[in-house]
Amino acid sequence: MLVRANYKDVKLEKPERAKAGLRWLISEKDGAPNFDMRMVEVEPGGQSHHHRHPWEHQVFVLKGTGIVFQKGFERRIQPGAVVFVPPGEEHCFRNTGSETMEFICIIPSRSKTEDAIKADTIPPSTNQQ
Amino acid sequence: MLVRANYKDVKLEKPERAKAGLRWLISEKDGAPNFDMRMVEVEPGGQSHHHRHPWEHQVFVLKGTGIVFQKGFERRIQPGAVVFVPPGEEHCFRNTGSETMEFICIIPSRSKTEDAIKADTIPPSTNQQ
Repeated sequence: MLVRANYKDVKLEKPERAKAGLRWLISEKDGAPNFDMRMVEVEPGGQSHHHRHPWEHQVFVLKGTGIVFQKGFERRIQPGAVVFVPPGEEHCFRNTGSETMEFICIIPSRSKTEDAIKADTIPPSTNQQ
Repeated sequence: MLVRANYKDVKLEKPERAKAGLRWLISEKDGAPNFDMRMVEVEPGGQSHHHRHPWEHQVFVLKGTGIVFQKGFERRIQPGAVVFVPPGEEHCFRNTGSETMEFICIIPSRSKTEDAIKADTIPPSTNQQ
């Protein structure tokens, strides 16, 4: 059994100048056989670019406010919100608030998405446009 | 894309007189192909019984305080804690605080655990002993 007293104990991986980063809370390195739990943290004004990939996201919002959108669809999200992005669907998360937006994001294990994951750039991050 | 404004909008399934229940936030009913997100809510004094099963748990604690334990292992958990229970490991979650303990618990899709899941009684719940 693995217990992390607090997710903040896990290093935030964030490219320099990026406005979003993530912490790998549970992954294959920990022996997880099927899926990975990450914490995504998006600074005010930050967003992921519109992208799609052949695997799903399951998201639970912990802090901050923002929107999740795709062409023709836009919904406000705040703490307690739940988002399911099916495989292959375009999506984008944007922080529209004044504090860091934090959400749990579960994906299938990288070894299970193999070729697909090679093109992955999660969390792609750009400044707000 | 599925967006639930708040997880509390999902029905809490709790057997009468039980001290723990769960909400199925994302599951195969929503088209999730690989894993399910549930919110487990344990009342003060409640706990799951000691049990094991051939699938894993990935847990993120949102509210309340308690302990997770197995034979020879016991750790305090509170908001922000992350727990990984590997497949086959005995485990028990107990609420030792005065407010409802809430934690996200991810498991593989039931169709992927088929025979194994038939014996499942998640969330087994008894009064504190």
